[in-house]
Amino acid sequence: MTSLAGLCIDISGVLIEEGKTVAGAREAMEKLREAGLSCRFLTNTSRKPASAVLDQLRDQGFDVNEDEVMTAPQAVAAYLKEHDLRPWLLIHPDIRGEFSALQTDDPNAVVVCDAGERFDYQNLDRAFSLLMEDAPLLAVGMNRYFRKEGGLHLDAGPFIRALEYAADVEATIIGKPGRQMFQAACDSMEIDSAACLMIGDDVSADIGGAVDAGLKAALVRTGKYRAEDDREAERLGAGVFDDFASVVFHWL
Amino acid sequence: MTSLAGLCIDISGVLIEEGKTVAGAREAMEKLREAGLSCRFLTNTSRKPASAVLDQLRDQGFDVNEDEVMTAPQAVAAYLKEHDLRPWLLIHPDIRGEFSALQTDDPNAVVVCDAGERFDYQNLDRAFSLLMEDAPLLAVGMNRYFRKEGGLHLDAGPFIRALEYAADVEATIIGKPGRQMFQAACDSMEIDSAACLMIGDDVSADIGGAVDAGLKAALVRTGKYRAEDDREAERLGAGVFDDFASVVFHWL
Repeated sequence: MTSLAGLCIDISGVLIEEGKTVAGAREAMEKLREAGLSCRFLTNTSRKPASAVLDQLRDQGFDVNEDEVMTAPQAVAAYLKEHDLRPWLLIHPDIRGEFSALQTDDPNAVVVCDAGERFDYQNLDRAFSLLMEDAPLLAVGMNRYFRKEGGLHLDAGPFIRALEYAADVEATIIGKPGRQMFQAACDSMEIDSAACLMIGDDVSADIGGAVDAGLKAALVRTGKYRAEDDREAERLGAGVFDDFASVVFHWL
Repeated sequence: MTSLAGLCIDISGVLIEEGKTVAGAREAMEKLREAGLSCRFLTNTSRKPASAVLDQLRDQGFDVNEDEVMTAPQAVAAYLKEHDLRPWLLIHPDIRGEFSALQTDDPNAVVVCDAGERFDYQNLDRAFSLLMEDAPLLAVGMNRYFRKEGGLHLDAGPFIRALEYAADVEATIIGKPGRQMFQAACDSMEIDSAACLMIGDDVSADIGGAVDAGLKAALVRTGKYRAEDDREAERLGAGVFDDFASVVFHWL
């Protein structure tokens, strides 16, 4: 493991799957801790604040510090602050708190996360008006849909596409697969991206994004993994492993 | 005018602009009638039934028969009937009547027109579910926005893009610039498309669509025309004229 200084770890589908810990993941995490490696837990979830993600990890028996959890909405908030932008927020009410430190009147930026029922004509039309006044469009990710209670439902990606087409603009993707989040994770660990390994179950957002940002990457065959992802992982130069524990075993 | 057997004429921005008759348009129409040329009036409007479009033309003093008006929602209804499809309708309530002859229970097709406030999460999510079950996606047009009371507002195009992206499908555009509507107009006049001239103010939907469908085309400098459209019209081999009357004067 000499060539690694730190890891970025996707949560859903890698450490936790359908509310349960993935077999062997807890023990593998302990081995990583013993080896003294820095870790960041990266998630695009835009329906939960970082505090709830932390609680979930701890409830599942993972020993995680608050500053090790990085969510896409947090990354968006950091980006807004850095660029001195006042957001108009099309987001789920549960993550409103992540943006509480920002000025939101007289908005000059549009933020789109998975807003569920808030994706209605009036809200989208308001976002469109701001984009036509040259406000930048910031988004957590381009996920097409999510699975809930056995059915597939629209995620934020389609609504971002709608706004891109309407205003003839391109969204800046802050969450995975955007470089922003991987870079922020490496920066916060004070390591070079080439010395960091991303472990994820999404060949596009996790693996493609990490490789683009200069990280090494490992795809796991749990969560949303599908057999046809092997080919893309190979093309990206990423290893494919049965699960999180196998990746850790391979590198330690 | 020996080479022309009929005309397709866009209404909004060509014959009528902001509720008023375009100067000289009525007299030019009378000349066309005297010359004995077949005419069809083509509109993509999806907030008015064909009967209201006919009334509007007559109110402005145009002598038009019912079967000369062709609206995109009517064309969609004809397509559904021809292909024996049962639509799920995401449309404005005012045009509900255009689809009254079709069976709508147990839907196996999705129709998207400009639905205004009906573009909400639940309706779009329902459309998405049907598309994921291989229902075709039919639309009147890909307009990005419309102008109303001085402001720009989202039209149907962005929501169609959202659904295309979500379900990884491509919409069939039945209205202009789709071939379907131009072909239906020529068929109903029993003329060859090469002997038909389309007159419109939208260089993409009217002119591009007509040329694709094998018609001749003339762009007018009224309505939504912008100076930069000249180049595209030239590329398409279409003439550019000051207004409807100038086109008629040129051809007669």
